[in-house]
Amino acid sequence: MINRQYLLAKRPKGLPEKNTWKYTESPVTELQDGEMLIENHYVSLDPAMRGWINETRSYIAPVGIGEVMRAGTVGQVIQTKGNTKFEQGAFVTGWGGVQDYTLSSGDGFYQIDASKVGLPTFIGTLGIPGMTAYFGILEVGEIKKGDVVLVSGAAGAVGSVVGQIAKIKGCKVIGIAGGKHKCDYLINELGFDAAIDYKNESVRKAIKRECPTGIDVYFDNVGGEILDTALMFLRMHARVVICGAISQYNEMTAKGPNNYLSLLVNRASMKGMVVLDYAKDYHKAMLQMSEWMGEGKLKGKEDVYHGMDQFYETFLRLFSGEKIGKLVLKIKQ
Amino acid sequence: MINRQYLLAKRPKGLPEKNTWKYTESPVTELQDGEMLIENHYVSLDPAMRGWINETRSYIAPVGIGEVMRAGTVGQVIQTKGNTKFEQGAFVTGWGGVQDYTLSSGDGFYQIDASKVGLPTFIGTLGIPGMTAYFGILEVGEIKKGDVVLVSGAAGAVGSVVGQIAKIKGCKVIGIAGGKHKCDYLINELGFDAAIDYKNESVRKAIKRECPTGIDVYFDNVGGEILDTALMFLRMHARVVICGAISQYNEMTAKGPNNYLSLLVNRASMKGMVVLDYAKDYHKAMLQMSEWMGEGKLKGKEDVYHGMDQFYETFLRLFSGEKIGKLVLKIKQ
Repeated sequence: MINRQYLLAKRPKGLPEKNTWKYTESPVTELQDGEMLIENHYVSLDPAMRGWINETRSYIAPVGIGEVMRAGTVGQVIQTKGNTKFEQGAFVTGWGGVQDYTLSSGDGFYQIDASKVGLPTFIGTLGIPGMTAYFGILEVGEIKKGDVVLVSGAAGAVGSVVGQIAKIKGCKVIGIAGGKHKCDYLINELGFDAAIDYKNESVRKAIKRECPTGIDVYFDNVGGEILDTALMFLRMHARVVICGAISQYNEMTAKGPNNYLSLLVNRASMKGMVVLDYAKDYHKAMLQMSEWMGEGKLKGKEDVYHGMDQFYETFLRLFSGEKIGKLVLKIKQ
Repeated sequence: MINRQYLLAKRPKGLPEKNTWKYTESPVTELQDGEMLIENHYVSLDPAMRGWINETRSYIAPVGIGEVMRAGTVGQVIQTKGNTKFEQGAFVTGWGGVQDYTLSSGDGFYQIDASKVGLPTFIGTLGIPGMTAYFGILEVGEIKKGDVVLVSGAAGAVGSVVGQIAKIKGCKVIGIAGGKHKCDYLINELGFDAAIDYKNESVRKAIKRECPTGIDVYFDNVGGEILDTALMFLRMHARVVICGAISQYNEMTAKGPNNYLSLLVNRASMKGMVVLDYAKDYHKAMLQMSEWMGEGKLKGKEDVYHGMDQFYETFLRLFSGEKIGKLVLKIKQ
């Protein structure tokens, strides 16, 4: 049984090159008592991965040089030894890493019920991106009925769920995404009220057009110019949720929002969030999200690429924007 | 009776030139029924004045071209006609403007008790700057005992009160100011735990030295590089109060805080405030502040310049930093 792995080989500057990771193959080692062997079917690709390979500690320790690249996974327990947390055959999700097999005591893994939705959903809408959206827009954004909600990265794994939850809660929702295809998807498939195509129109003019009375909540996944422009349109007591900054992750120096004094003028707040803080409430959120999915109010979409050898090329899609919904790599052959 | 006035003559770009205002002299007009004539003794000079003369509406309408320059004042009612809000002889504070005499119905003016503290205190520690400090650090900063509080513009009218209130509440307080004289004042006169002289040392190294465990609350009056540096030292769940940005007011484009992603990593918030929102609670705050002053726990300091003809030169001190405490112009001859 051969385990294919991507190990972190060096710390990248800017957009990671292919040799940032080293591909290896090695036999799976013997299980210790209490351990399980998990066969990973799907690997989650998330913007946060870029931060984890920097040297500086962020909200979580960096991946060490020579270590398996950290990634969310969904897979199946195929061997157990002794008394284990999950039974053989159980489907589980957790931090399996970019590899075929994970040896684990089960810490940090959760069993999932794969009878109603597909496995990739558990690293997408019912996984970390979905949890990020749920707690970000409800607990940090504190949306209420009638709010005007603007979301960037709106066709992405987090943004698409943020917008749909805001619609469920009775908000007016405007999404920012790149390209006509994504914008059509937001309106026609997900029920957004409007979409702004930042690649083909002035974001400033478009926000003015779509949010003539301003923005109550801006949920930011991208940073840079779009964040700066959104700040110009805050209403009184607006909330800006800083969830990510995909446009800045490969820059040597991030660009700050020059219009931050809009926070003063409008008595607004800008607040950062990290989904891990809400771990104790994931279960409750998953139940609610599953219910919404069952009722057809919340749709998940995964953009699935195939083959362990496609890891690097698929990773790059996080930054090129060439994906729609949750980016996933299917590695089980 | 001749009224000397400074009228706004044009909208400045960058640091205002002298001809931004036009000096005029004209006779005081006849009182209408219900009106009072207030003789202004002291004019308050505040960083916010720079924003009021921009064309764009901020949290308050701009001063119009040809209008008397807006300014807080403290003065005395010297004539009344008919049934008026205050009696002749009363001392009052309000938006009297940069002029000797203000004709007013009394709207927006408050009577003050000048028996215990000097008149300038009512446009300083017991006036708008004091109210800004009080509500900013307590309601927006939400300080609690043991917090590490960093204040910029710490020797100024707002910052000096912020730091003293934080000390009263049991916080560790570090102030940032320019020059040894101001830094000594913070420690020796106001009881700050430490002071950082941004003109003569690296703010980054100094924060690291004085706040080895990081910052719980950063109260920002200055913006620019100092804000950016402070963000690097936020603790988990830190609060950044955006009160002002004196370093940016004369810039054509403000500089945003590049380190804003520290908000994300540390689940921190950055919140803007405008003191006018707390007007209904000013009275309560003034009582509390007066009590602290009586007990010697809170000290006010006014830097008083003399003569209406010194308006422009005194105004410039807001930006050159050549003042300590509350900047005031005494205009009563």
